[in-house]
Amino acid sequence: MKQGDLILLVSPKGKRYLRRFDQDTVLHTQEGMIRFSEVARAGSGGAVATHIGHVFRILRPTTHDLIKGVKRSTQIMYPKEIGYVILKLGIGPGIRVVESGSGSGGLTTALAWHVGDTGRVYTFEKRPEFYALSGENLDAVGLSHRVSRHNHDIAEGFYPDSVVKGDPASDPTDADALFLDVRTPWDYLPQAAAVVRPGAPVGFLLPTTNQISELLWALEDSPFEDVEVLEILVRRYKPVPERLRPEDRMVAHTGFLVFARHGGRDVCPPPPPADFPESMDAGPSGFPDESGQGDDNPDAAD
Amino acid sequence: MKQGDLILLVSPKGKRYLRRFDQDTVLHTQEGMIRFSEVARAGSGGAVATHIGHVFRILRPTTHDLIKGVKRSTQIMYPKEIGYVILKLGIGPGIRVVESGSGSGGLTTALAWHVGDTGRVYTFEKRPEFYALSGENLDAVGLSHRVSRHNHDIAEGFYPDSVVKGDPASDPTDADALFLDVRTPWDYLPQAAAVVRPGAPVGFLLPTTNQISELLWALEDSPFEDVEVLEILVRRYKPVPERLRPEDRMVAHTGFLVFARHGGRDVCPPPPPADFPESMDAGPSGFPDESGQGDDNPDAAD
Amino acid sequence: MKQGDLILLVSPKGKRYLRRFDQDTVLHTQEGMIRFSEVARAGSGGAVATHIGHVFRILRPTTHDLIKGVKRSTQIMYPKEIGYVILKLGIGPGIRVVESGSGSGGLTTALAWHVGDTGRVYTFEKRPEFYALSGENLDAVGLSHRVSRHNHDIAEGFYPDSVVKGDPASDPTDADALFLDVRTPWDYLPQAAAVVRPGAPVGFLLPTTNQISELLWALEDSPFEDVEVLEILVRRYKPVPERLRPEDRMVAHTGFLVFARHGGRDVCPPPPPADFPESMDAGPSGFPDESGQGDDNPDAAD
Amino acid sequence: MKQGDLILLVSPKGKRYLRRFDQDTVLHTQEGMIRFSEVARAGSGGAVATHIGHVFRILRPTTHDLIKGVKRSTQIMYPKEIGYVILKLGIGPGIRVVESGSGSGGLTTALAWHVGDTGRVYTFEKRPEFYALSGENLDAVGLSHRVSRHNHDIAEGFYPDSVVKGDPASDPTDADALFLDVRTPWDYLPQAAAVVRPGAPVGFLLPTTNQISELLWALEDSPFEDVEVLEILVRRYKPVPERLRPEDRMVAHTGFLVFARHGGRDVCPPPPPADFPESMDAGPSGFPDESGQGDDNPDAAD
Repeated sequence: MKQGDLILLVSPKGKRYLRRFDQDTVLHTQEGMIRFSEVARAGSGGAVATHIGHVFRILRPTTHDLIKGVKRSTQIMYPKEIGYVILKLGIGPGIRVVESGSGSGGLTTALAWHVGDTGRVYTFEKRPEFYALSGENLDAVGLSHRVSRHNHDIAEGFYPDSVVKGDPASDPTDADALFLDVRTPWDYLPQAAAVVRPGAPVGFLLPTTNQISELLWALEDSPFEDVEVLEILVRRYKPVPERLRPEDRMVAHTGFLVFARHGGRDVCPPPPPADFPESMDAGPSGFPDESGQGDDNPDAAD
Repeated sequence: MKQGDLILLVSPKGKRYLRRFDQDTVLHTQEGMIRFSEVARAGSGGAVATHIGHVFRILRPTTHDLIKGVKRSTQIMYPKEIGYVILKLGIGPGIRVVESGSGSGGLTTALAWHVGDTGRVYTFEKRPEFYALSGENLDAVGLSHRVSRHNHDIAEGFYPDSVVKGDPASDPTDADALFLDVRTPWDYLPQAAAVVRPGAPVGFLLPTTNQISELLWALEDSPFEDVEVLEILVRRYKPVPERLRPEDRMVAHTGFLVFARHGGRDVCPPPPPADFPESMDAGPSGFPDESGQGDDNPDAAD
Repeated sequence: MKQGDLILLVSPKGKRYLRRFDQDTVLHTQEGMIRFSEVARAGSGGAVATHIGHVFRILRPTTHDLIKGVKRSTQIMYPKEIGYVILKLGIGPGIRVVESGSGSGGLTTALAWHVGDTGRVYTFEKRPEFYALSGENLDAVGLSHRVSRHNHDIAEGFYPDSVVKGDPASDPTDADALFLDVRTPWDYLPQAAAVVRPGAPVGFLLPTTNQISELLWALEDSPFEDVEVLEILVRRYKPVPERLRPEDRMVAHTGFLVFARHGGRDVCPPPPPADFPESMDAGPSGFPDESGQGDDNPDAAD
Repeated sequence: MKQGDLILLVSPKGKRYLRRFDQDTVLHTQEGMIRFSEVARAGSGGAVATHIGHVFRILRPTTHDLIKGVKRSTQIMYPKEIGYVILKLGIGPGIRVVESGSGSGGLTTALAWHVGDTGRVYTFEKRPEFYALSGENLDAVGLSHRVSRHNHDIAEGFYPDSVVKGDPASDPTDADALFLDVRTPWDYLPQAAAVVRPGAPVGFLLPTTNQISELLWALEDSPFEDVEVLEILVRRYKPVPERLRPEDRMVAHTGFLVFARHGGRDVCPPPPPADFPESMDAGPSGFPDESGQGDDNPDAAD
């Protein structure tokens, strides 16, 4: 265990302490004090006792734990939505993604985790208090170095003075993906279209059906296409093998997701047909046949 | 656009061709031939015309596109489950994850995409035809170099002869996470516990309630704890702003997800209380207060 | 079995023939002919063979069977919604209920079944073809005598010339309940308020969220109150005991239900307080205490 | 308003008082006293003020109100399930239905309301405290005269000494329908089959998947067929027209419903084919053609 490593300490009652490791720290909990030097000795997956004998488990946090650990003063996005957004926007190592607002930094945390050290998150937040809070949350989980943050209203575009043009660590131009969790996303479609690369996937989170309709109307007159609207429900079961049943109550609504794709650049003119050779398709050279690609199979879509 | 880059060509009717770029290829489609040299000129986000004038869009595929593009001869996991699994197992750059069975390679593809070049996927499949198919699918998307594949029945453990002990590219020991998509996962819990690091998160996909009960019983006598059972539903809407409504039909079931965590090593003995200094909590040194961590807030869980 | 009794004949393959009994009829099916005199001999719950030996079951249809048996040329209401509407509107023996449009007569059939011979259904349909079709369907199930039908546009109110004022079999005044399954119900709220008794429950079926918003706005300026919006989902399971699981696909949307209650007449003035005796509450005289009535328990609501 | 009529008094804050009307009663509420003589003067749909001036609405309760008003000491069935059961079992005026256990009497109340004065409910409850409670609840809503109640364990069948054989008010023989809400319904299938008429629909409510499997196994060796398993979900929306959205949380599980049909009597032998005349199908004589009956349309099922 080395300086700055994220650790999750879990009390006997399940209370969770998400911390970065520091050899000299002593954590004060309601069930007693824990020396981090003892935590290091036990190691991740081990256990440690407080000075009054309560045993805590030592875990390495998952992304799900990090998102749950975000200090929030807004409604944050849920893992059920974040996981799906990650796939739909193609977020992964090396990806450059733009996000607004930063909110409490829950989605920012997940994006920063997934883009790795070779990718970049550009996040914009107009309210100073959330700009500060999301920064704190990113620092706390040690992911700030992957994020370019701006206290800026995107109504004026994604290029505030704080952006250093031409510096990939700061300049969001030609971003691979974009996500908007703002109240009136229809107001920012031209700005969004200007900051992503042609063909880039974009996503939106909206709580009400009125907002969806509003956004759909705006998307009709935008460079975005392939619009999808959906919501994600998680239903939990009581893990009792001899009396298996869903839990009595569930979260019924956290928001609707809208996805679209930048329509791309203008088409290049078709080449003269006579010019075409009788050569091979790329298919046989390795890639499986289209027939199995499931595009005609609606069941394969989600 | 460079040799081997993944591209997604979309026909005017929405038919999708997922290919790796090669300068000399000519793609034969039902709507005419497309030269990849023209594709390179137009670039990602652009468009290209077939020799008979049909215009195709050129896109960079998202993870969602890659999963949809998997050639399958089994039921594959859906993006809605994969996205959630990615978060619950903490999959990201640098992570080492074990998976069985490989199936058609849909989950393997997503895992390999997310672990990046610094992580590793170890996948085990006992049926030769799926071992071959998942390999083909990984090759097709250019992710094979991140995956250690074994045609092996995990009833005999995760250490077939094909594993080179001590070689991190091959040896799955102390894996950060594990996922089982097999018919009788309860038969492999000791093997699973032996291959992951203490405290590691594990997941399971199961289609029937009988299997969940069976697995829950086995987990009670295993080193795994913190068991959760859930299912994920995606409900899609017709994207018509003036007549917004859910689609008439939806996918109602693809499988139940079970998650647990390796219980970790034995506890170390508590230190003598007299020894404790009056020092600072780690909290104030940067990490937000626990009060906002949402652990008491059931709404924050998913 | 007597003349006019409803019977449901089910073929070996599950094809259903809903008929009214007549001693002299011979039913022609794809699997041969069935004499109704033989049906009478076997009786309800028995079985009968066609002239070429295929055995059909003889059942008494349930309300669910009747609704399924409605010949339709519109989208009909589903049993899942009808059952809930029946309870929310308090439909039962002796109740007088107004409905528009008649559509194919599916809901009309269910209402007519439940109000019994002492109740009454008043149904209004402006399109002649549906007016005719719903009449046919009611005749077919022998429930026409409980229904007052009008080929009339309710924009002009619920009192066409075909209504005989003061005749309870024809005049819908002071109806106990009302249900509107029309495209623009917000246009008919004054007419609806004028036809029901004060305090009466009313219901609406609408397919889109835009329509719900429109109706909610109109209800704000109407005499109706206690507005509720909900939808009902039925999820079916494959009835296989050793592999129990939900069906792969389900009906995801048939419509939203909106319920409200007529706000009633103006309040009478409060009596002088001095006038009050020290007498008993009605509660102890037989009715269970309020404490258990579940009104504070949101779980009890649906 | 006449002696014994059910009235629902609703306080300004929404507290509900379900009572039977009596001219001389004075209702004591937390917001003051209400004379029923004043209630009668205002009438249903009107309003009345307490002696300290708080205005209560006077409503005629719907079936939904009655079910909500049941004093409970068990989990009661929800309206969403009751409404569907009513349709699937064909409950309506004149129907004779058997039920066990009585529980708090919620379903009994709904059944008794719907069968009218020409039908009959036979209910069996082995626990004396629920036998008493359900009786109280039926008395409170004035429906006891339609119900034959027995404090009896149905393991011994549906014919306790308290049943007067041959008296239709007491003897459940040849019941039109049956519903079991008991913990181990698989133990009572022979008893159930013996009490219903051939072909009768039956239903079951069960909370866990293990119980469903157990029941499905038992049904395989029983005279019941056409087995269906399903669950019903109600999702509520906040009735705010300009910000329409589902409620944040919902009831996720109240129980699974299982339906089946008594398989009926043995088949009668097929008549000699030569005997058949060339006569008319019953269809053209009034009943709509089968083609529209929706039996091939899975969407029409629920």
